[in-house]
Amino acid sequence: MTTHPIMPARIRALLFDAYGTLFDVHSIVPSSGHGITGDLEELSQVWRQKQLEITWLRALMERYEDFWSVTEAALRCAVRQLSIDVTGPQINVLMQAYLAPTTFVDVSTALEAFNEIPLAILSNGSPRMLESAVRSNGLESNFTEIISVDRVKTYKPSPKVYALGPEVLRIPVGEILFVSSNSWDAAGAKAFGYQVCLCNRSGKEIDDWGFAPDFVVSRLHQIAKRIQNFAL
Amino acid sequence: MTTHPIMPARIRALLFDAYGTLFDVHSIVPSSGHGITGDLEELSQVWRQKQLEITWLRALMERYEDFWSVTEAALRCAVRQLSIDVTGPQINVLMQAYLAPTTFVDVSTALEAFNEIPLAILSNGSPRMLESAVRSNGLESNFTEIISVDRVKTYKPSPKVYALGPEVLRIPVGEILFVSSNSWDAAGAKAFGYQVCLCNRSGKEIDDWGFAPDFVVSRLHQIAKRIQNFAL
Repeated sequence: MTTHPIMPARIRALLFDAYGTLFDVHSIVPSSGHGITGDLEELSQVWRQKQLEITWLRALMERYEDFWSVTEAALRCAVRQLSIDVTGPQINVLMQAYLAPTTFVDVSTALEAFNEIPLAILSNGSPRMLESAVRSNGLESNFTEIISVDRVKTYKPSPKVYALGPEVLRIPVGEILFVSSNSWDAAGAKAFGYQVCLCNRSGKEIDDWGFAPDFVVSRLHQIAKRIQNFAL
Repeated sequence: MTTHPIMPARIRALLFDAYGTLFDVHSIVPSSGHGITGDLEELSQVWRQKQLEITWLRALMERYEDFWSVTEAALRCAVRQLSIDVTGPQINVLMQAYLAPTTFVDVSTALEAFNEIPLAILSNGSPRMLESAVRSNGLESNFTEIISVDRVKTYKPSPKVYALGPEVLRIPVGEILFVSSNSWDAAGAKAFGYQVCLCNRSGKEIDDWGFAPDFVVSRLHQIAKRIQNFAL
């Protein structure tokens, strides 16, 4: 993999996806699923998959409910599908853990490398969830804007969501680098006109959604080098 | 399960989903996957899941491509994800099989029971795929309309798609019974205002998308009895 700068235009801001990119959604069940009997890894996978499906389907149906509500509906869906017995209090503990998810280990180094251009978040999360996740990880000072889809009451990958980036940051979309570990989110951002970095931590085959990212890294701290000549 | 008529309003037409409801999408890989080495059941499941995901994501991204193109992209995605080796000719054989899928065994009896009200199809399929699937199963005379999402260049569960039913049939949405085996499709139709029957052949737990069907059957031929006082 080359470390040469490869971006076609100056980058004036970085816009990060939150869940799966900065915050490890699969840290929640292992840390907060105490006392639940069943395949907890499968629960975590199905919970996440249902969470995404509900966002896509509700957005398409034009029946938005916020990400907190969707996340709880997805959890209930997952435990039913997997025939896992959970109590009300156990559901509550898992949901509360969503307010303080763990960041991936490469996040703080990656963010500190960009002290000369603004960093922001554009996420499906509700404002309360995002503020809480950022604050509980001490990342408040790293981001100039935390943008929730709640402003437009729909979900990624709707263009209405991606339009919030240039609108809030007041920077042309082609001069913003959008960073996501979700390949479908990266595709949506690319289709909208961002420069796009996909962070593929797992190294697994990347789904081809028809809109390839500009470049791929395996850890977020690799981004700075890739864009240094353009960003600073 | 009761067999009493339960519908709140007269039903003047039945509108069927196609793939998964009339046509068994999981018949294609077993019948046409000759010579492919790997877990063919998993291939069939992942192919279908990716096919749906691509329709949802492209619809949300406002980047419609027709269902033939989506179905082939999903197949390529699935074989890559599962690291299954397939040749170009094997891809072609699988794709051609989509033009003549097998109907479920309960379909012909179910359709024959409704000779006094119009039956129609509302499907993600492209016009060519739907015409071919209907003709290859000798069902042309059963349907007064075969309606493809291609008319509005988006996918279920967008309200733009469900609006085609009352528009083409010239019957108010509340007097049309929408029939699907896809729980998310049934939810989309219910949210739009149809009366809805979910056909749950597998008997598995039904995902709760927030919009419950009016009633559930395990086979399509059970519908006639459930609505007889209203439909005829």
